[in-house]
Amino acid sequence: MRLLVAAVALAGVVWAQAPAPVPPVVSPEVHADGRVTFRLRAPKAAEVTVRGEWMTQAEKLTKGDAGVWSVTVGPVPADIYSYTFSVDGMTVLDAVNNRIKSSSRGAGVSVVEIPGGRLHEVRGVPHGSVQAHWYQSPQIGATRRVMVYTPPGYERDKERYPVLYLLHGNGDTEGEWSAFGRANFILDNLIAEGRVKPMLVVMPYGHTVPPNDLSTGSRGRNTQLMEEDVTKNIVPLIDKRYRVAPGARNRAIAGLSMGGGQSINIGLHNLDLFSWVAVFSAGVGGGGGAADRQAFEQRMSAVLADRDGTNKKLKLLWIACGKDDRAMAGAEQLAELLQKNGIRHTLLKTEGAHTWRVWRSYLAQLTPLLFR
Amino acid sequence: MRLLVAAVALAGVVWAQAPAPVPPVVSPEVHADGRVTFRLRAPKAAEVTVRGEWMTQAEKLTKGDAGVWSVTVGPVPADIYSYTFSVDGMTVLDAVNNRIKSSSRGAGVSVVEIPGGRLHEVRGVPHGSVQAHWYQSPQIGATRRVMVYTPPGYERDKERYPVLYLLHGNGDTEGEWSAFGRANFILDNLIAEGRVKPMLVVMPYGHTVPPNDLSTGSRGRNTQLMEEDVTKNIVPLIDKRYRVAPGARNRAIAGLSMGGGQSINIGLHNLDLFSWVAVFSAGVGGGGGAADRQAFEQRMSAVLADRDGTNKKLKLLWIACGKDDRAMAGAEQLAELLQKNGIRHTLLKTEGAHTWRVWRSYLAQLTPLLFR
Repeated sequence: MRLLVAAVALAGVVWAQAPAPVPPVVSPEVHADGRVTFRLRAPKAAEVTVRGEWMTQAEKLTKGDAGVWSVTVGPVPADIYSYTFSVDGMTVLDAVNNRIKSSSRGAGVSVVEIPGGRLHEVRGVPHGSVQAHWYQSPQIGATRRVMVYTPPGYERDKERYPVLYLLHGNGDTEGEWSAFGRANFILDNLIAEGRVKPMLVVMPYGHTVPPNDLSTGSRGRNTQLMEEDVTKNIVPLIDKRYRVAPGARNRAIAGLSMGGGQSINIGLHNLDLFSWVAVFSAGVGGGGGAADRQAFEQRMSAVLADRDGTNKKLKLLWIACGKDDRAMAGAEQLAELLQKNGIRHTLLKTEGAHTWRVWRSYLAQLTPLLFR
Repeated sequence: MRLLVAAVALAGVVWAQAPAPVPPVVSPEVHADGRVTFRLRAPKAAEVTVRGEWMTQAEKLTKGDAGVWSVTVGPVPADIYSYTFSVDGMTVLDAVNNRIKSSSRGAGVSVVEIPGGRLHEVRGVPHGSVQAHWYQSPQIGATRRVMVYTPPGYERDKERYPVLYLLHGNGDTEGEWSAFGRANFILDNLIAEGRVKPMLVVMPYGHTVPPNDLSTGSRGRNTQLMEEDVTKNIVPLIDKRYRVAPGARNRAIAGLSMGGGQSINIGLHNLDLFSWVAVFSAGVGGGGGAADRQAFEQRMSAVLADRDGTNKKLKLLWIACGKDDRAMAGAEQLAELLQKNGIRHTLLKTEGAHTWRVWRSYLAQLTPLLFR
């Protein structure tokens, strides 16, 4: 602190002697009408663009004084979005923005929030907590972190709560459903409105092999290890550490993209543990083709064959996908497969693409249906 | 997941037709002997340098194939460090490294860990948890987040625990003491070795005015508001939500740099709340000069005048600073002021500069002294 003050005092002297002070860069600047100005100081760059999660293509910035590039875009619908700059082809974060969505693979992406009364915003309601636990996974051979949302009042009451296991996507880590997905604030607000049953939300880390491992079989191996991690390590840990309501009727599993594939694979394969299963923006057979679908069908053969037993155990099988999402083909194939075998399910086709805006909305649509 | 597989399959086709595949960049690469290779793809850059937390000046990278710049440095002593690249004068993170230390002001810095049996490393011992709470601060007019470490076994036993309030530096947020400082693993390991009394560690957010606000009086206003936030909001919240041992004898306050200034200001001013006060790499009068020292002396006049009463209430006043740290002048002035007034204290001059390597070490040296 003292050092900073000294540096600033010194900087003041330097500025007074220099021809013109360099103003601090402000970025992103969110205007009242929802437009957003992005700025980046890059004096030597030849081209700078910005790509936001809501854009279908990058926008060019123009160079102004002191090497600061800028562009104003929008209006952008109220929400939280990720964005990055590209400087002569190199992807970089916004240097002056400290809000970052982290990534399983690289330096993450910058975050801009356009306020507007959205459900994920912080409101004057009681807030739950998010707790990080570290545990040893013998199957994976690593110490891993799992995040747990507890609803407001959990510390003081004596209730037992149902539990939603909520899985992230390929580019994410276990922190994203709360930090960027705002699952905790969405639940706080829905609980305050009396629209959802208060529940715990457990957010595991979804990579068991290096996220960059694209070798043959790595995806299947990851799903298999996640099933072991969830069923053998995480569920017992949660059941031991928290006041949870007992049985499959009080456990749901849901996930987005990669986590959606994990949810259907783990949930449907463990109906003694989970009676509620939801798949956001994923399915079977979409990217992997016929072989992928056949492998899934084979894996689930007993569950699919026992129609009445499965329908009795399953309280909800909810599949949702955006119309502009390339995952739709897989979601439709999953729904067809269930249909063919007489397994009750819901396929919800919504607006939107493969983005967090859609997934926040799905969480808000799903949770009121759970544990009823 | 499906999309990624599709994209990878497509990329495979493109690669097969291209003259040479582009290998993925790996950075940082930590070698067995503690040397570290940094790499960055920047095909159009004229100069690329890397600056690590342990370096006194930046190192130049050299350009290799496919526009990938690299340099190997070290050996570097085992620890966790931040680093950034500079590309033609623009500071950027390591694009392929997903470990980031966040910042109160900008996009943060990349993180590299050189393993070597350090106390902050994850060991096969029972782990505590870190919980995030959100609370309303009427004095600041914001919903804020505070992080709380609970020691292993807290959920299952019935003990009441002493509490260390641990404050961060100007460039940090409330997450850094656990995420980058590794306070939770340091405590886990010290508890496992029986060297510290199991305690809660409460980590508030230390900025109450915008971190970029350098206007006259903003520093004093920040300290004042932090005192109100800690004493009126956070201590009552912790006392209500957790099983805490009662009274000032069971409360310590410590902090680094800006947080060190806050600790001495809040702690010494509230001896009815805190009997243990520690200051890492900070003091009075260093950067702010004589006026700063006089303001502190005036603020603490009653405490300084009541030598016997103050010495009776204070169980520990511990000041530590690195010999290469410009904060040393302030630390020495604080010690002189206490000496002059007969207030018992310890001034520890250590190796090191104004870095997290020093602060992790101070936490490990301080905590065994507390609550004895």
